[in-house]
Amino acid sequence: MTQASASVAVFLSEARVARLATADQWRKPHVVPICYVYDGRSFFTALDRKPKKVPGHKLKRVRNILENQNVSLVVDEYDEDWSRLRYVIVNGKATLLRSGAEHEKAIVLLNQKYAQYSKMRLTELKTSVIKIQPHKIISWGKF
Amino acid sequence: MTQASASVAVFLSEARVARLATADQWRKPHVVPICYVYDGRSFFTALDRKPKKVPGHKLKRVRNILENQNVSLVVDEYDEDWSRLRYVIVNGKATLLRSGAEHEKAIVLLNQKYAQYSKMRLTELKTSVIKIQPHKIISWGKF
Repeated sequence: MTQASASVAVFLSEARVARLATADQWRKPHVVPICYVYDGRSFFTALDRKPKKVPGHKLKRVRNILENQNVSLVVDEYDEDWSRLRYVIVNGKATLLRSGAEHEKAIVLLNQKYAQYSKMRLTELKTSVIKIQPHKIISWGKF
Repeated sequence: MTQASASVAVFLSEARVARLATADQWRKPHVVPICYVYDGRSFFTALDRKPKKVPGHKLKRVRNILENQNVSLVVDEYDEDWSRLRYVIVNGKATLLRSGAEHEKAIVLLNQKYAQYSKMRLTELKTSVIKIQPHKIISWGKF
């Protein structure tokens, strides 16, 4: 399915961190933790959490997406009681948003979800955003 | 580097969960949370956390590894204080261990690290193990 069920959608909206896997043209995967928002249809993550360290377009995840749009995202909860383990895997296509209405909306949603961004002046930074459109959403465990 | 520094090695040894990204022959990545052990050189993760649900060799991660050995693993800590965010990315090659001395050692280490496995009789199950040999270990944040 490409649409999450109600309880899975809440889980995806509320989680604070996800892990995003991309792959380069030689099929080498690369996985990083990301902060993100889910608007019920797509996922959005900003590039510049550490603005001055590495220019956004040089990040491995960005270079990979420009070579290969396929991505996989996982949102999970670890618990020492393994009967409570659960995760949602989202497979889809990623695109880079540099400006425009959708980019602006994503920045607003990221600022709303993460107070941390307001200190970083994310809006002023005009950071690029990765948009992920799900093709398949797989949930595992109790929701 | 392929060897972790002392503080990174401790972090990798103690963390309870990692996320493993594989990719299929069409460059489509797939990411899942895993329990694992790190012996200071390689990472090992057992397939059969839920033995009866899906046979190990049918798992997407296994099919991907058989097509394409390249994997990426991330171990991270999320914190609302973003100055405390940190992660370690391990890029390397994965192989499937079905038996032998290294397989047995991995099962012992997994049982030692996770009390949960002892209830599941992991040793008796003779579950397959994925071994990940790092080519590159990248740490980000304070260690």
